[in-house]
Amino acid sequence: MELFDNISPLDYRYVGRDKEAAKLLAPYLSENARVHYQAQVEAALVRVLARQGICSKEIAREVEQACRRVNAEDVYKEEDRIRHDVRALVNVVRRQVSKEAKPFVHFGATSYDIVDTASALRFREASRMVLLPVLKGLEKTLIKLALRERDTVQVGRTHGQHAEPITFGFALSEYVSRLGNRIQAIDAAKDNLCGKFSGAVGAYNASSLFLKDPVAFEQALLKELGLKTGTHSTQIVEPESLIDLLNTVISTFCVLANLADDLRNLQRSEIAEIAEAFGEKQVGSSTMPHKRNPINFENVKSLWKQFMPRIVTVYLDALSDHQRDLTNSASARFLPEIFAGLYLASERLNKTLSRLVVDHANIERNFAASADSIVAEPLYILLAQHGHANAHEEVRLLTLEAKKKGKPLLGLAEAHPALSRYLKAFTPGQLAVIRDPAKYTGLASKKTVQVCQHWKKALKL
Amino acid sequence: MELFDNISPLDYRYVGRDKEAAKLLAPYLSENARVHYQAQVEAALVRVLARQGICSKEIAREVEQACRRVNAEDVYKEEDRIRHDVRALVNVVRRQVSKEAKPFVHFGATSYDIVDTASALRFREASRMVLLPVLKGLEKTLIKLALRERDTVQVGRTHGQHAEPITFGFALSEYVSRLGNRIQAIDAAKDNLCGKFSGAVGAYNASSLFLKDPVAFEQALLKELGLKTGTHSTQIVEPESLIDLLNTVISTFCVLANLADDLRNLQRSEIAEIAEAFGEKQVGSSTMPHKRNPINFENVKSLWKQFMPRIVTVYLDALSDHQRDLTNSASARFLPEIFAGLYLASERLNKTLSRLVVDHANIERNFAASADSIVAEPLYILLAQHGHANAHEEVRLLTLEAKKKGKPLLGLAEAHPALSRYLKAFTPGQLAVIRDPAKYTGLASKKTVQVCQHWKKALKL
Amino acid sequence: MELFDNISPLDYRYVGRDKEAAKLLAPYLSENARVHYQAQVEAALVRVLARQGICSKEIAREVEQACRRVNAEDVYKEEDRIRHDVRALVNVVRRQVSKEAKPFVHFGATSYDIVDTASALRFREASRMVLLPVLKGLEKTLIKLALRERDTVQVGRTHGQHAEPITFGFALSEYVSRLGNRIQAIDAAKDNLCGKFSGAVGAYNASSLFLKDPVAFEQALLKELGLKTGTHSTQIVEPESLIDLLNTVISTFCVLANLADDLRNLQRSEIAEIAEAFGEKQVGSSTMPHKRNPINFENVKSLWKQFMPRIVTVYLDALSDHQRDLTNSASARFLPEIFAGLYLASERLNKTLSRLVVDHANIERNFAASADSIVAEPLYILLAQHGHANAHEEVRLLTLEAKKKGKPLLGLAEAHPALSRYLKAFTPGQLAVIRDPAKYTGLASKKTVQVCQHWKKALKL
Amino acid sequence: MELFDNISPLDYRYVGRDKEAAKLLAPYLSENARVHYQAQVEAALVRVLARQGICSKEIAREVEQACRRVNAEDVYKEEDRIRHDVRALVNVVRRQVSKEAKPFVHFGATSYDIVDTASALRFREASRMVLLPVLKGLEKTLIKLALRERDTVQVGRTHGQHAEPITFGFALSEYVSRLGNRIQAIDAAKDNLCGKFSGAVGAYNASSLFLKDPVAFEQALLKELGLKTGTHSTQIVEPESLIDLLNTVISTFCVLANLADDLRNLQRSEIAEIAEAFGEKQVGSSTMPHKRNPINFENVKSLWKQFMPRIVTVYLDALSDHQRDLTNSASARFLPEIFAGLYLASERLNKTLSRLVVDHANIERNFAASADSIVAEPLYILLAQHGHANAHEEVRLLTLEAKKKGKPLLGLAEAHPALSRYLKAFTPGQLAVIRDPAKYTGLASKKTVQVCQHWKKALKL
Repeated sequence: MELFDNISPLDYRYVGRDKEAAKLLAPYLSENARVHYQAQVEAALVRVLARQGICSKEIAREVEQACRRVNAEDVYKEEDRIRHDVRALVNVVRRQVSKEAKPFVHFGATSYDIVDTASALRFREASRMVLLPVLKGLEKTLIKLALRERDTVQVGRTHGQHAEPITFGFALSEYVSRLGNRIQAIDAAKDNLCGKFSGAVGAYNASSLFLKDPVAFEQALLKELGLKTGTHSTQIVEPESLIDLLNTVISTFCVLANLADDLRNLQRSEIAEIAEAFGEKQVGSSTMPHKRNPINFENVKSLWKQFMPRIVTVYLDALSDHQRDLTNSASARFLPEIFAGLYLASERLNKTLSRLVVDHANIERNFAASADSIVAEPLYILLAQHGHANAHEEVRLLTLEAKKKGKPLLGLAEAHPALSRYLKAFTPGQLAVIRDPAKYTGLASKKTVQVCQHWKKALKL
Repeated sequence: MELFDNISPLDYRYVGRDKEAAKLLAPYLSENARVHYQAQVEAALVRVLARQGICSKEIAREVEQACRRVNAEDVYKEEDRIRHDVRALVNVVRRQVSKEAKPFVHFGATSYDIVDTASALRFREASRMVLLPVLKGLEKTLIKLALRERDTVQVGRTHGQHAEPITFGFALSEYVSRLGNRIQAIDAAKDNLCGKFSGAVGAYNASSLFLKDPVAFEQALLKELGLKTGTHSTQIVEPESLIDLLNTVISTFCVLANLADDLRNLQRSEIAEIAEAFGEKQVGSSTMPHKRNPINFENVKSLWKQFMPRIVTVYLDALSDHQRDLTNSASARFLPEIFAGLYLASERLNKTLSRLVVDHANIERNFAASADSIVAEPLYILLAQHGHANAHEEVRLLTLEAKKKGKPLLGLAEAHPALSRYLKAFTPGQLAVIRDPAKYTGLASKKTVQVCQHWKKALKL
Repeated sequence: MELFDNISPLDYRYVGRDKEAAKLLAPYLSENARVHYQAQVEAALVRVLARQGICSKEIAREVEQACRRVNAEDVYKEEDRIRHDVRALVNVVRRQVSKEAKPFVHFGATSYDIVDTASALRFREASRMVLLPVLKGLEKTLIKLALRERDTVQVGRTHGQHAEPITFGFALSEYVSRLGNRIQAIDAAKDNLCGKFSGAVGAYNASSLFLKDPVAFEQALLKELGLKTGTHSTQIVEPESLIDLLNTVISTFCVLANLADDLRNLQRSEIAEIAEAFGEKQVGSSTMPHKRNPINFENVKSLWKQFMPRIVTVYLDALSDHQRDLTNSASARFLPEIFAGLYLASERLNKTLSRLVVDHANIERNFAASADSIVAEPLYILLAQHGHANAHEEVRLLTLEAKKKGKPLLGLAEAHPALSRYLKAFTPGQLAVIRDPAKYTGLASKKTVQVCQHWKKALKL
Repeated sequence: MELFDNISPLDYRYVGRDKEAAKLLAPYLSENARVHYQAQVEAALVRVLARQGICSKEIAREVEQACRRVNAEDVYKEEDRIRHDVRALVNVVRRQVSKEAKPFVHFGATSYDIVDTASALRFREASRMVLLPVLKGLEKTLIKLALRERDTVQVGRTHGQHAEPITFGFALSEYVSRLGNRIQAIDAAKDNLCGKFSGAVGAYNASSLFLKDPVAFEQALLKELGLKTGTHSTQIVEPESLIDLLNTVISTFCVLANLADDLRNLQRSEIAEIAEAFGEKQVGSSTMPHKRNPINFENVKSLWKQFMPRIVTVYLDALSDHQRDLTNSASARFLPEIFAGLYLASERLNKTLSRLVVDHANIERNFAASADSIVAEPLYILLAQHGHANAHEEVRLLTLEAKKKGKPLLGLAEAHPALSRYLKAFTPGQLAVIRDPAKYTGLASKKTVQVCQHWKKALKL
């Protein structure tokens, strides 16, 4: 099988051809990883069996060593023969140990004691070693940018329309906050993943035959692996802890997609407040040599479109007949792809943001274009505060007049007989805001700093 | 508008015609509720304004009373005129207060300070007052049933095939556990809902004009309403706390749908271990008078099919341009329907389970049909424990032989020269299990009790 | 039940309060409509029975009249008593006819012979009478606008970046074409909807008892109603014809959402090429009196976010156990909402487009800003056509130089020793394009006219 | 990159390790295929250019030969350098041709003229060469089975409850019909796929520079490739024709999943009417050696759970800003996976059905268990036909009595004073049905034959 005979873009393009990504992701998300984690659970099982005196420590050591040597290729070869993947793994291990050790491989276990426990382990580690680092890296980049731009006055936009002033740093601090929140959520959710060792139907039928306290044994085994035990299991682990983790993963993806959208829009030709950096040799378009496209932001959005809907599969897999059916077997094999997808989007966003081009002149230009009408809000608020009973409507009419006559709003207000007396009561500070809308940024700068400091500390960045 | 001119089945059928449901749900999920919660936030705002000395207590009292009188009809009439829903609410309140009080209605607020805060409040209360009670009621019913049936030996089923023995109570305790877990999850998620009072673009622009510490004011207001403050907001609250709540709501729905599926399957004619109770006058089918269909379980599954995919809308709404766009305005109006859907499914499941017919004779009959082959697992485990190096394969071949010859597995094992010596080493307790598979239920009964007690205590039922 | 006690925004807001919409939609999409269509099928049944001599014409007339009098309220009252909705309908009809006629009400039918046939009828009529007219109205508006603006030179945008010139009419003609295509698709799909009259399990068991050719009878009945017969049915109609219709409905929704997005973006403050018309009394924002937001385009996008994911429910409902289960009963009741959703989005888009404000000055301004760099593409194409072997790369480097030096691209090209000789070979027409990029609109205008004429004719507008 | 370092189960397991599947799928669905199809479009372009006299035939031949030599590896290497995938392809071709030929490679084309046209070509061919053959193979197997079992009387099941009699062949003919219908739908949809050659913004800007009739040229090019031309395009082809194809693909998947569910249920231990064949050496369970699980049917359902929700991505990709954005670039790369998914499910289902074990004894046993109550429907119908005014209710009460007393329904009816006189009027044929419910199969057998013959002919099988 050649690289480009692959069907998945993860394999032939996004991970498969990116050595750095492949090196980071394969130990958790590849099929080799799946087999290795299962072997790890088998090894932990025999270790605990020995600790509880069910087999000797020599046997445990022997089995552990065999587990360490297991690889996907051997397991698949055996599966070809016997058509059962976990039994194949067991056979591969058994073949490498002494006759005395053989019975203690997979002893008292049902396949899904191994599979589900290994999955929990693997997804916890993928969260810890792949997702959290890249997301924290992105968070750091965002914090750096937000702090740097905390005083860059920018027009705030609602409905795509110029609204009240903010700073560019404040706009970025939205994502510092939302991403920080999601990093905590992934971190917490990964630690709730449960394993199991309760046998074929969850009632510890088999283990009750040879263990005094099978529940205590299960806890010992899962503790050995750093996993939680749910209050119940059937042949499989209750799906809810994994659902919760995937909700955090996919909602994090939404944060990234939203940020990518914002930046794509800020890069529009007419807005042009930011731009992706662009290599000297890079080709923007096959026919329009002048184009500079936000291809990385577009890619992030596109990955989100591919992976977000997969939550539906996750919910569908939450339903399993009685003590389990197997209708999640193929679908669950695709779960690691979601982790890979979020990694790719995060890493790309991080790289792109690290080299983000910010065009301060354009930010100023865009702000200036609306400076006059921005005055409307503080004007109406201050009129109300100074006792005008109908300030909102009055100012609304005035903005219409200003637009019609092409005159500045403030001038019209000052000339307005019914308003001018209120204006005279404004404090100098209030008047300053009215006269220079760039001062009407509220707490934008201060809040940016607070948000960044909060998350730096909370996430120990 | 007559009832049956409605388009939504919630309105013309499931809630609209069920007085009890309507009475319970309308205060949280109807349009009237939406308006009332917004008025409540306006009232809290003026209360806190008075407390901070920005307006007098008399004014606050006056506005509060006006807020209490607001109803959807008046607000809609005003919206027809001015085409802005929140401004309409404000106008309705303003009209009912003195000239002195008018400026302090909605003072310094932007629409979404009210809308999003009121939504958080409403969804928290809907969770607390609608969802948690009905789910706890269902949990209680499940616990009662599980404890009652904790010793009812039932064949466990994996892949729809008879597997190892459990008890029917143990099967139910799966749902006690999963539902208990989700109740806790909803409970926790509802308390994370955030409000905001940071103005049109989130930078406290307006409130900075007249408040020394707008962030402290925001916290005071939200504390007054029992809500949290996020680390950041734009015109709108960060969507993640609501996403997390909806993930718990929809994953709870999955638990119910799974239970409904299991029960539908157990009601199949050939299995017939349980049945929905059936009224004397009830018509099962328009042409097959003998039919007794699991229509309530089917309804639960069907509601799940309608509401589960709506998580996609929730994720789509997580993306909002810059300081917000309004592309969530219509879609978010449908969110209360998801709460109504889960309520309906829970209530119906609870009622149906309360009158569940359990056919112990059929449970026994089905178990007996597989009793012999069930022996295979304990036999292989015990052979392995007693040192047989190849027990699984040996027993697998024996089951094929048993099937071919139509002979009991145990008899073949005892007659097998290579196995009989291992069998002789079995303890009496082990032999008892091998001879009576109904004893091979492991911890099914004990675990059922543990699970029920755990959740009874954890949820204070 | 008061209007604002409703939970669905369709009922309390979007349809329920819009008299015109309610009047148009209720006859097809309300619960009353559902009952009426079922009664219509019962009436057709007895008509065909009489035609085939199974009952008398008098009986048929009697039953038909009773069917015409049926209303949802009576049916629901009866359902409360007997707990079966179709049997309730039958009872209501039976009560109103003579003893002789009673046996021929619902004669030989199973509930879903009526329910599924009535649904097919209803959705066909909803497509014909609700969707197609509003979509054709929208198409007309688009054609009018596109033709009017066919020569309005506008900068084309790819990746949000200025690309090559088009005309605004050409941009609109994209939607003329895509919407036209979808109108045809809905039209075709609605005519594929199938009914059935094959009894409880689809094998014509009951009707075989008293009809010589039950298949011919089924065809006669469905022909009477203008419906197709599938090659097979179980208790229910094969779901595929309805799936196909809903795919056309939802993909039409995607076209509308895409158009709404484009217009929202063109209304951005910095672009400002178009705007929604805005009433004199309309309030744009509760705190920013100057705001003019694209609230209608946002609403269209938002409705799409609510209804698009419901395709998942449609696919889930395609799976029904054996000769059917009932797990589509509640979910299918929500299907009419999707039709209502598309109607609302279409109607709103149509109204908004009818009063669309086009700012030609801004369109020109935006075009002018990129006029120079637009030259890059025709320049490179013509250089290539005149034999330059490396035109794309040469021009790409030149655009970088132009940007760096702030000089016009064409000037640099003419001054470039290796390029100037090619330029001299350009025809006058080619040179004209290079000198005036507004001429580089290709077939934009001509194509606009062709597209509009094609669809006008194809859809008989 | 080793096989098991891959992340996608398609690559490391389902296709990657299945030589037959890989050989069949790679030419259409792999990355190599993507590149080859793009090269094919480039070749067709130069061919048509030559035909229209824009370049010489020698040049065309030279470029065509170069196109045939293109492979993904070379293109990726070039993309690494210049960061644009289509330009990379163009460069690879250009490098291999003479200086004279270079300008005519990709002449007048924009990237997506190639990419979208190649995609349409590829998906049409994947439909034609991968999907339709495997689906027709499955259809044949179904027809064979259905015809073989057309007279096997089986109890029909609605709501999982025994209903009226059918034959097993009739149950299978449901899928003959639904699958046949979908095969036609895929076949039709694939032929609607459109290509384009209208340049960077769809207005034929570039091609207008050197072609008299660019629209005619586009048609000539697409005709050369056997593709349709839409009425409009922007930088990209209108998405609707691809959406329609994917709707047929995914709704076909639903048919397969439904069939797999039915068969899984029929394999339940208590029903046991069918079973997957099971190899002598196959291991059913790692701890329960006697288990025979419907793992292939489960796999089909599981693949459906993975691929069905991807329709959401397809709809999301239907929205592209203005003359296009690139937010479908990554997501669209995953589209071939959906084709692979349906292939895998179909092939597996076909293989499993070819060796399906049908247990006629159990089918009979299950039927016999309900034979008595089945009589209820024909009894009530015939009573009604013979003039009984209240037959349904009378029989309903009788079934309750029969159940309570444990007596046969027919006996009770004959003993019933008010019913017996109607019974006496029944014809011998009618009485035969009442006395032997196995005769009450209506047209099950006949219809099975009709359905099979219809689709055999319609699909030319």
